[in-house]
Amino acid sequence: MVSNTKIIFAKIPTTFPVAGEHMIVEKSEIDLDAELPQGAILLKTLVLSVDPYMRGRMRDASIQSYSPAFPLNQAMSGHVVTQVLKSNNPKFAQGDLVYGLGSFAEYVLVPEAYTAYFEVRNEIKTSGLPISNYVGVLGMPGMTAYVGLIKFGKPVKGETLYVSAASGAVGQLVGQIGARLGLRVVGSAGSDEKVAYLKELGFDAAFNYKTTDYEEALSAHCPNGIDIYFENVGGKMLEAVINHANRFARIVCCGMISQYNTQNPEPIHNLIQVVAKSLEIRGFIVGDSPEMTEPFRKDVTEWLKAGEIKYREDIAEGIESTPEALIGVLRGKNFGKQVVHVADL
Amino acid sequence: MVSNTKIIFAKIPTTFPVAGEHMIVEKSEIDLDAELPQGAILLKTLVLSVDPYMRGRMRDASIQSYSPAFPLNQAMSGHVVTQVLKSNNPKFAQGDLVYGLGSFAEYVLVPEAYTAYFEVRNEIKTSGLPISNYVGVLGMPGMTAYVGLIKFGKPVKGETLYVSAASGAVGQLVGQIGARLGLRVVGSAGSDEKVAYLKELGFDAAFNYKTTDYEEALSAHCPNGIDIYFENVGGKMLEAVINHANRFARIVCCGMISQYNTQNPEPIHNLIQVVAKSLEIRGFIVGDSPEMTEPFRKDVTEWLKAGEIKYREDIAEGIESTPEALIGVLRGKNFGKQVVHVADL
Repeated sequence: MVSNTKIIFAKIPTTFPVAGEHMIVEKSEIDLDAELPQGAILLKTLVLSVDPYMRGRMRDASIQSYSPAFPLNQAMSGHVVTQVLKSNNPKFAQGDLVYGLGSFAEYVLVPEAYTAYFEVRNEIKTSGLPISNYVGVLGMPGMTAYVGLIKFGKPVKGETLYVSAASGAVGQLVGQIGARLGLRVVGSAGSDEKVAYLKELGFDAAFNYKTTDYEEALSAHCPNGIDIYFENVGGKMLEAVINHANRFARIVCCGMISQYNTQNPEPIHNLIQVVAKSLEIRGFIVGDSPEMTEPFRKDVTEWLKAGEIKYREDIAEGIESTPEALIGVLRGKNFGKQVVHVADL
Repeated sequence: MVSNTKIIFAKIPTTFPVAGEHMIVEKSEIDLDAELPQGAILLKTLVLSVDPYMRGRMRDASIQSYSPAFPLNQAMSGHVVTQVLKSNNPKFAQGDLVYGLGSFAEYVLVPEAYTAYFEVRNEIKTSGLPISNYVGVLGMPGMTAYVGLIKFGKPVKGETLYVSAASGAVGQLVGQIGARLGLRVVGSAGSDEKVAYLKELGFDAAFNYKTTDYEEALSAHCPNGIDIYFENVGGKMLEAVINHANRFARIVCCGMISQYNTQNPEPIHNLIQVVAKSLEIRGFIVGDSPEMTEPFRKDVTEWLKAGEIKYREDIAEGIESTPEALIGVLRGKNFGKQVVHVADL
């Protein structure tokens, strides 16, 4: 028997979750030598991803949403890269690297029915890229950036793109793709250090939304108005962007993090401008664009290998750091994509 | 010299405009026998259209918007059908019926530069349809319905369409096109009489939004949720619709009449659902879809001639009734498309 630490969803939060209350670290044991059921696989978690959308899963299971609620008193789950320790399934071999939606535990026994959530990606062994990249820039957040900007943003060279939460998991890639496409790219982030990083990435302008008036900053940095807004935060920022949007602007929404931990959402007062400016506001979930998986992986892998794009990660050490890492993301404490390093290959 | 009554924009309103204060009826004279300048035409107005969007034109001219502000102390303007009394322009002949954006006056001298706003439509003489139809179901409001539902609503047979302000200039056509396309069509209007009319038109369900709780009504009448919302009103109604929207619903916005006459717009609190439900909210102006003019005119003329669709108009008599007619539209007093009959052919 070996020790197997898990992250348990223990209580539904009403505002910000608290480590040790809503999420708890639970020690258990697992027998790695036990016989596997037919079709099952045994995985060792290498890295796991904590992302803002997980706050939406910390709800009462009776409330329907696009992503299922975390069951109470069970391990949380999310995107992981794992290694196959043992397999009783012909699709997986011992030693394979596997990407998918997995339980937040050091070791996970996956019954046959759930193996569909996993995909063998042995190119991770040879790409020369950090394993953590595969839950970030090459995983769900990276694909969210790629799909959101290209498919829903409908960018046209010379247009102005504004990205909020721009140094985060999604935003930093959005901005760099925008720059490649010849857009004027403007970003905002929550510290001067993050703002400096955005400029390093090639953003044309960036500002600290905590110390700057939104309206003034958008006037200064988007002198020709905003054509595409990559929406990550919601609330007052969205309202300000609508005021600065050009006719036919596209507002692409993959998250509204400012609204996740409040029981009193900030209202939007200026939606009338949707009519006056022929705006398009489009929410999307990356899973609904499977046709873009291959082009996304090919392009972004190529850009990373060639050093044409950068991607900063904020790596928490050890699975027991997961609750604090997720809370940090919800509070904007992370600098770059937040991942948790669980074990080495 | 003959008398020529005009409707003058006299003052910028802050809430609802008042007849005699913000819009005044002005008597003047015109010499119908005077020589026309090169390229000019002299028009006699037959019908004119008053529409909700005109409230947006009653603003300070320094505020930019899609539709130019009405200049103060000049005649208001809008869609009209007129007859050419005299022409010094080869594109127009005496007796032609002409559709376009014209000044609200009984007689209008159009200098050459402004003749581009007018189009000869002599088919009006022979179609057998009322002239007033050409500023309504066959004019800008009708095309708004057609373009909004077909191009932006992206209807799929079996889906549920909800239309607010459904007995109005745009809504009654939206609902009937929706029914032709095999949608479940639900409408709301502001009186029981209007609701009864919607059922006559073939709406599957309709309710009086002044006497019914929006949420309850939408639950009752849209048991499978809302796939397309044709937005005419904004505010609390929009918020309720977002609560009842299905994943991938399209919210097509051509107006938000509830918000035109207030200085304190009703905020929307639940935009986070744009992400959760992958909603698409799209504002549009019909003038941006010129490619749909011909199919629209062909289809709707055919449906009207065949008696397959109905279109109710509320006809005010005499140009001097224009201010009250427009105010009535803004207050929802009209029953059907509001037009003003100015003169007979």
